[in-house]
Amino acid sequence: MNQLPLQGLVVLEFSQYLSGPSAGLRLADLGARVIKIERPQGGDAGRRLAIKDLWVEEDSLLFHTINRNKESFTADLKKEEDRELVKKLILKADVLIHNFRPGVMEKIGLDYDSIQDWHPRIIYAEISGYGKEGPWKNRPGQDLLLQSVSGLAYTSGNAGDDPVPFGLSIGDTLCGAQLVQGILGALIRRHKTGKGARVEISLLESLIDFQFELVTTYHASGTLPQRSGVSNGNPLLGAPYGIYATSDGHIAIAMMNIHELGKHIGCDDLLTFDQADVFLKRDLIKQCLAAHLSQRSSAYWLALLHEHDLWAMQVFNWQQLSEQEGYRRIGMEQVITTAGGQQITTTRCPVRFNGERLTSKKAAPLLGQHTKQITEEFTK
Amino acid sequence: MNQLPLQGLVVLEFSQYLSGPSAGLRLADLGARVIKIERPQGGDAGRRLAIKDLWVEEDSLLFHTINRNKESFTADLKKEEDRELVKKLILKADVLIHNFRPGVMEKIGLDYDSIQDWHPRIIYAEISGYGKEGPWKNRPGQDLLLQSVSGLAYTSGNAGDDPVPFGLSIGDTLCGAQLVQGILGALIRRHKTGKGARVEISLLESLIDFQFELVTTYHASGTLPQRSGVSNGNPLLGAPYGIYATSDGHIAIAMMNIHELGKHIGCDDLLTFDQADVFLKRDLIKQCLAAHLSQRSSAYWLALLHEHDLWAMQVFNWQQLSEQEGYRRIGMEQVITTAGGQQITTTRCPVRFNGERLTSKKAAPLLGQHTKQITEEFTK
Repeated sequence: MNQLPLQGLVVLEFSQYLSGPSAGLRLADLGARVIKIERPQGGDAGRRLAIKDLWVEEDSLLFHTINRNKESFTADLKKEEDRELVKKLILKADVLIHNFRPGVMEKIGLDYDSIQDWHPRIIYAEISGYGKEGPWKNRPGQDLLLQSVSGLAYTSGNAGDDPVPFGLSIGDTLCGAQLVQGILGALIRRHKTGKGARVEISLLESLIDFQFELVTTYHASGTLPQRSGVSNGNPLLGAPYGIYATSDGHIAIAMMNIHELGKHIGCDDLLTFDQADVFLKRDLIKQCLAAHLSQRSSAYWLALLHEHDLWAMQVFNWQQLSEQEGYRRIGMEQVITTAGGQQITTTRCPVRFNGERLTSKKAAPLLGQHTKQITEEFTK
Repeated sequence: MNQLPLQGLVVLEFSQYLSGPSAGLRLADLGARVIKIERPQGGDAGRRLAIKDLWVEEDSLLFHTINRNKESFTADLKKEEDRELVKKLILKADVLIHNFRPGVMEKIGLDYDSIQDWHPRIIYAEISGYGKEGPWKNRPGQDLLLQSVSGLAYTSGNAGDDPVPFGLSIGDTLCGAQLVQGILGALIRRHKTGKGARVEISLLESLIDFQFELVTTYHASGTLPQRSGVSNGNPLLGAPYGIYATSDGHIAIAMMNIHELGKHIGCDDLLTFDQADVFLKRDLIKQCLAAHLSQRSSAYWLALLHEHDLWAMQVFNWQQLSEQEGYRRIGMEQVITTAGGQQITTTRCPVRFNGERLTSKKAAPLLGQHTKQITEEFTK
């Protein structure tokens, strides 16, 4: 195995649920030592947040998945004695991440300005829901709510549908990923300048960044993006972009010339439209295509489309995907053995480094599992 | 303004469309000098990929948005003479990014193994669609297709719906973000070891990573995730999680105790269910809630919910959002003046650094705009 990129760095994670912990997980997989600082009573609230009602030993499966490869240190930050101990940990840390609501870290004297006085090299990374000022600063910074506020729910689904949220926590994931970018950038800067930095992001800023195309087209066109009435794939793209039913399943068709498409799949109706009309007559064109594709199987159409290198693929659910050779070959799964001896099949870090996949066998920590050991190590 | 984190670093971007260029944009916004290496005929194919048929001068608005803050250098990589010139650029570069299909860079001698011989400090970053081996390696690596293959289209929309793709290019965005993490990690490692590295990722690996909850629950439970029949928000979460119609719009309701919810909004039906049944009776519970919420306005319900700090928010479209004080306060917009003098309102980098927002006035380059200047600078 390579020397991992972040080997030797210590990260303290004062974080709950998904956004902060997903940043911590990525830093851990890249080689950092990540220590969760948790309340003695219950710890990270994510330990109790179950997906599909699945639990592993005392914690939710979700917690195990997003907190593997970390250590746990318990401290009651309301107690002076525990705070002093935590400050000793901070003094030896390179990075601190928190996703508390604005004001919480200030109240206990662990805000950036206070820490910077005695540890100017710290990289202090903060996630909020809606930024630290303005009318929404104290609103709950939860993924679905941010999707809803940020306009994102009007990008998926068809024109006639109610707003449709993305079915996974896109805000948490992007925000965590962007925080990692900021943290690593700050570490690179510290190499040159010797100085730490404060890195801030909010779920709202992450989701606006994600919608850069919508912001820019909204201002340039003055009109709202319109979801397609048929097989919407992206409200800003013309026909044929979308997912279509075939006689035995579904296929996805990305951007391509509609005449070329019509010719190769034998859909003469498409030839009656002008390529320049793929925006204006989007739904009409897609209706013709949908009617045509419904008559034969996915395999039939994909053979024709791939023969001409047109951009189309199957639509799989999780069971179908996991049976594909193309899925197995990327080797994204790894098996973790928990502290209690149970085995969990989960994902690895998606980045490969010098040809090697970054896996880690270390399971999520029990609450406070490393408190004693870390106390000895950091206070001697 | 701070010293930007990546100031002094040179990045060569051999990339098209969205995934590679989004990584380049982030590196540029963090302070790196990013030079696009483009074909003399047409350049980055993204210059011709229009969203909503919007164009700015000769290039699509999309191209302008994702390639601001960069320079453009044209070279015909099939010509020996141009390749030799590009090698001189590579020798002075810190990072090289490409998202060509597997084999393209090998054919012209610009693969990692070849470059490493004469420039061992290079960070060589590659994006593929499906990995560089296996049955899908030559399939088109396009966002919608990867969403469809990776199972993601079965997370959004309701149980009865056809597969519903995310309405924006989630694969490109996540993959670009994760590549940046890998690149920055490799740069940190280079500070310590003096050695470059190869960083690889594929759109498929990014989207599987994004679905870590689905992978893990699929293996733990042996059953497929089921989208909710009513107001699906996440196939793995129980009631009431989702978006609901009110008498005058929509509101989003995240995870909360259904009895507490029922009590505070006066929905007695919710009190007849057991909190333990929010997974098993998800649709029934959500139907009761939907019927109740449809009777009064969004403002009415949100006042009750926020009074008790329950996790709920408005659902906005882009016009509504852009009128909100909470949106204006995060200041995510910036105005760029193009080479031709036109103004574009677009987004800034979402990360803040020592309290400052990272903006940049530099517009997207014309094709080959900096070829002459860069040739002089890099070959003297």
